[in-house]
Amino acid sequence: MDEYYMRQALTIAQYASGRTSPNPLVGAVIVKNGRIVGQGWHRKAGTPHAEIHALAQAGDLAKDATVYVTLEPCSHHGRTGPCADALIAAGVKKVVVAMTDPNPLVAGNGLTRLKEAGIEVVTGLLAAEAAKLNEVFIKWISTGMPFGVLKTAMSLDGKIAAYTGHSKWITGSPARQFVHKLRDTYDGILVGIGTVLADDPELTTRLPHGGNNPTRIIVDSMARTPLTAKVITDGRAPTIIAASCAAPAERVEALRSRGAEVLLLEKTPSGVDLRQLFKLLGEKRITSVFVEGGAAINASLLDANLIDKVYWLIAPKIIGGKTAPSPIGGTGATTADQAILLEDITTHSIDADVLITGYIAGREGRDVYRTCGRIGES
Amino acid sequence: MDEYYMRQALTIAQYASGRTSPNPLVGAVIVKNGRIVGQGWHRKAGTPHAEIHALAQAGDLAKDATVYVTLEPCSHHGRTGPCADALIAAGVKKVVVAMTDPNPLVAGNGLTRLKEAGIEVVTGLLAAEAAKLNEVFIKWISTGMPFGVLKTAMSLDGKIAAYTGHSKWITGSPARQFVHKLRDTYDGILVGIGTVLADDPELTTRLPHGGNNPTRIIVDSMARTPLTAKVITDGRAPTIIAASCAAPAERVEALRSRGAEVLLLEKTPSGVDLRQLFKLLGEKRITSVFVEGGAAINASLLDANLIDKVYWLIAPKIIGGKTAPSPIGGTGATTADQAILLEDITTHSIDADVLITGYIAGREGRDVYRTCGRIGES
Repeated sequence: MDEYYMRQALTIAQYASGRTSPNPLVGAVIVKNGRIVGQGWHRKAGTPHAEIHALAQAGDLAKDATVYVTLEPCSHHGRTGPCADALIAAGVKKVVVAMTDPNPLVAGNGLTRLKEAGIEVVTGLLAAEAAKLNEVFIKWISTGMPFGVLKTAMSLDGKIAAYTGHSKWITGSPARQFVHKLRDTYDGILVGIGTVLADDPELTTRLPHGGNNPTRIIVDSMARTPLTAKVITDGRAPTIIAASCAAPAERVEALRSRGAEVLLLEKTPSGVDLRQLFKLLGEKRITSVFVEGGAAINASLLDANLIDKVYWLIAPKIIGGKTAPSPIGGTGATTADQAILLEDITTHSIDADVLITGYIAGREGRDVYRTCGRIGES
Repeated sequence: MDEYYMRQALTIAQYASGRTSPNPLVGAVIVKNGRIVGQGWHRKAGTPHAEIHALAQAGDLAKDATVYVTLEPCSHHGRTGPCADALIAAGVKKVVVAMTDPNPLVAGNGLTRLKEAGIEVVTGLLAAEAAKLNEVFIKWISTGMPFGVLKTAMSLDGKIAAYTGHSKWITGSPARQFVHKLRDTYDGILVGIGTVLADDPELTTRLPHGGNNPTRIIVDSMARTPLTAKVITDGRAPTIIAASCAAPAERVEALRSRGAEVLLLEKTPSGVDLRQLFKLLGEKRITSVFVEGGAAINASLLDANLIDKVYWLIAPKIIGGKTAPSPIGGTGATTADQAILLEDITTHSIDADVLITGYIAGREGRDVYRTCGRIGES
C-alpha cells in the first residue's frame, strides 16, 4: 500500500502544475489505520506547504499516523515555517518521502530533524517519478539555470515550413491546443526577433478557460522589436527584450519606456550570449523557458546546452523541398555520430499528429536529477 | 467463433509473406463440429492454393464442414485448378470469405460458382484486415503498377545526413535489421545512381538466416553505373538499370553484356519517366518496389504518385545544420496546406528508434482497396 499512497501524493501534487513556481510541486497524504485522513498539495509560492494542508485536514488523527510526502519536508523558516516541525508537533509516527531536497545545501536536513524527534523515516519510494514531477524545479534549484524546453512542429519529412516560408498550419488544432497547455505551465516563453517581425505573435496562453501567460522573452540583439508589436503593447504579460550591448541606446530607451524590460547582454557572432541570458532569467526566478523559436535560435540554444527537454510534434504530411527549412539550423554536427543524443523518449498521438517527447542526454543538472533519485533509494 | 477462425486463417496466410509474389497471401481453415480439422496457406506461386492444402488435411472431414478463407476462392483454371470446384467436390457446407477477388474482372465468380452448387456463402468477415494483408497484391492486380514503399531513416530534426554528407549511422542496429526484413518481403528495391556511385551498395537482404534478395532497380538516366559496381558483379540478384533513351549506346551495351537488364525510358528534366518505369516493372510481375533512395528520387516518386506506403525511421538524436539534407528534396509544396497527406499512421519503437508507418492518402488504387472491403461487407 505504501506505493499506492505515494502515487496518490504524486497525483495531487501535479494539480498545481505551473502554479507553484519558483517552488516545487509537492503532495502529502496522511494515513491512519489504513485510511487516508488528510491530504494536501502546495498550491502557490507563499501559501502553505502540502504537509500543512494535510495536517489541517487530519486534525487529531495525525497523531501516530504515517505521512507520505513527495519531497523531503523543509526544515527552514521560509514564509510558512518548517514543515518538519509541524509534523513533529502533530505527533506523526512515520514519514515516507519520495525524494530528498534537490538543493544540495539543505538536502537531508528535514529528514535529520524528523529522525532526531524519534520519527521513523523512509526515503526513495517512487523517487524517479517524484524527480520527473519536479524536473523544472530540480534543474533551477541545483544549477540556477531555467529548465529549457524546446517545442517544434514539423511535417513527417522534417520541414517547419514550405520553401516559400508558408507554415500555417503544420499540425492540427488539437496539437496546437496542446501547445497552449504547455505555455500555461512554464514561466517564460522565448522566440527570436525574426518571429516577432514576421508574425507579430501574442505568445499568450489561449485555452478555453484562460491560463497563465508566461513572461515573453524576445532574443533581439539590436533591439529591433517594433514599439507597435503585440508583445509590447498588449499588456497581457511581462516582456523581456534580450538585446546586446551593441543595440542602439534610443531603441533600448524607447522599448523600456513602453514597459519592456531590456537586458543588455554580451554580443556574440550569432546574436547575444544565450547562456548569460538564461543565467539572468534564473536569477529572476524564471525557472523554465519554453522555446518556440525558429531553426537558428533552436540551434544556438542546443549548441549552448540550454535545452533540457523537447516536445516534437510531427504532422502526417510531406511538405518536401530541398530548400524548405527544418527545425534545427545552424551548422549542425559534422558526422551522424556527433549528433546531440536524446533519452527517455516517449511517443503519443494527438489526434492525427504524433508527439515525441525526450530529454537531451548531455543536459546540465542531469546528474543532480539522477542523484536525487539515488539518494532517496539508499 | 467465426472471427476467431478467420483470424487464424489471416495469421497462417502471412507465414508466406514475401514468398507468394505475384500471387496473394491466402489462408484457409476448415472447421467441423467446432473443431479445426484442416488448415493451409498458399506458399509460393505455382504451388497449391490454401484451400487445397486445407482440404487435403481435412480429408473426409471436409464434408459438411465450414471453410474460412481470407480471399474469394478462385474459379479459373490456373496452374493448380479452380479452388471453388475443389470445395464443391469435397462437399463443404459453408464458405466464409474475408474479401472478394480484387481483380474486378473475376470478382465474385468464385462465390457465384459456390452458391450455384448450393453452398452457403458469407463474405466480408475481417475484410479490412484481409485487404491490408494483401495491400501489395491489390495494388498490382487492380492497377498494373507495383506497390511503392518508401523507407527513410532520419534524425529527430529531419536530417538524413550531416551537412558534410556523413550518414553512417542515423538509426541503431535493430532498426537497420528491420530494414533487411522489409527487403526480404518486397519484389524490387530501388535507388538512384547517386547512391550507387557514393556507396556501391549490395542492396541485398542480410538477415541471420539469409532472406530473399529483391530485384535491384537503379534509376540511372545516363547509364553511369560502373561495370565494377557490386550490383553488376556480385550475381546475388537480378539488376535492372532504368536508363533514358539519351544514355550512350556503348554504356547500355556494356551493362547488358555484364548481365544487367537495361530499360530505355523517356527522358524527363529530372531523369527518366518514373511512371513508365513502374508500369514496365508491373508488367514484369514486380508487384512491389521498396525505395531506399535519396532526397531527390524520393521527391520525384512522390510527385509522380508512385508511393503507396512509407516506413519512416526516426532516431532520437539531433544532427542540426541549415544545409544538412532532409528526406524529401525537390521543390516541395508551395504552402503547408498543399502538403502530401498521410493516413492510417501507426507508431512503433524499434529499440531507441521510432518507426512511423503510413499510407499516402491520394495513392492510386486506394479506392479499389476500399471497395474490396466494402464489397465483402455487403
